[in-house]
Amino acid sequence: MQNARLTRDDVARAALRILDELGLPDLTMRRLAAELNVRPSALYWHFPNKQTLLADLADRIVTRRHPAESASGWDGRLRAEAFVLRDALLAYRDSAEIVSSSLALGLGENPAHARLRQALDSSPFDAESADRAATTMLHFLLGHVSLEQQRLQYDSLGARSGEPVTLESHEGDFRFGVDILIAGLRDRASADSPAPS
Amino acid sequence: MQNARLTRDDVARAALRILDELGLPDLTMRRLAAELNVRPSALYWHFPNKQTLLADLADRIVTRRHPAESASGWDGRLRAEAFVLRDALLAYRDSAEIVSSSLALGLGENPAHARLRQALDSSPFDAESADRAATTMLHFLLGHVSLEQQRLQYDSLGARSGEPVTLESHEGDFRFGVDILIAGLRDRASADSPAPS
Repeated sequence: MQNARLTRDDVARAALRILDELGLPDLTMRRLAAELNVRPSALYWHFPNKQTLLADLADRIVTRRHPAESASGWDGRLRAEAFVLRDALLAYRDSAEIVSSSLALGLGENPAHARLRQALDSSPFDAESADRAATTMLHFLLGHVSLEQQRLQYDSLGARSGEPVTLESHEGDFRFGVDILIAGLRDRASADSPAPS
Repeated sequence: MQNARLTRDDVARAALRILDELGLPDLTMRRLAAELNVRPSALYWHFPNKQTLLADLADRIVTRRHPAESASGWDGRLRAEAFVLRDALLAYRDSAEIVSSSLALGLGENPAHARLRQALDSSPFDAESADRAATTMLHFLLGHVSLEQQRLQYDSLGARSGEPVTLESHEGDFRFGVDILIAGLRDRASADSPAPS
């Protein structure tokens, strides 16, 4: 029987709770239905399959936070978006994997890419280069956060060899990488800009 | 009964065959034992658990190819290593996930990082910055290839929305990203270098 009061938002919120408490491997449609005390068919009314659910979660995770308006220039805005996206991803377990998977599936416009791309609107890059610049930052971001989340997970299970990697060390690596990317983009932007006439 | 003729190399090669044909989710110790026609206990003699097996596979995948010696300068060598590592990863399904996971577990010295780091030996960076430069390139590489492999996988299952992403488009994105990173590192290197006295 269809639970008339169950909304799409209810389903997504319950999925985020399971993700937060148990992680992606335990986020099954069956468990989600049990958590909501409905039959699995009530979920499929809102999400035809798990992929569309994960794409919705990716959007929610990524759009939760926005940078302060203070950043100026395309480079400052791109940098600010990168840091805020990392924070947004770190708020949910396995989020880098979820965002990467929904990006790979090509479901809808990816909001993480869209935000990085938007920061580049005022850059001197043409549309193709601006797309690629946003893609570069996104690939670095997902590679970095995915590793960071796996390490946190392994540390919490006592499964890692060697010393725990600290949050400070991850932050230092991330800052270094973002700064290198921005410096490279500035260099490319000045090479692409037509000389003032 | 211990199969006296089964070597560690036999086990790793069989695991790579399963990876190639079926992918990481189907690479279980049980299936591997069946493939080799031995009991699972014969595998544990060589690899105490699946993590150490995956770390060994990551090393084999990453060290399979080396760049031509023609690249000159730390920037040319770093660029060449990045391209060869992408090729090496693309030769095995789910390899980015395997390398990322063994990197996160901290098992042994990671050969992908070691190769990128070695290219930076002749750079003007101090040890900490050279480590971070190699880490930045590796995070970009893993983020990029992981997405590329997921897309190939989804395309082969007919599960992706939108047009197939071509190898050329992935290569263009990868080249753009590597060039931006190298330009950013050159910029940082010239800022770090002491002025000639």
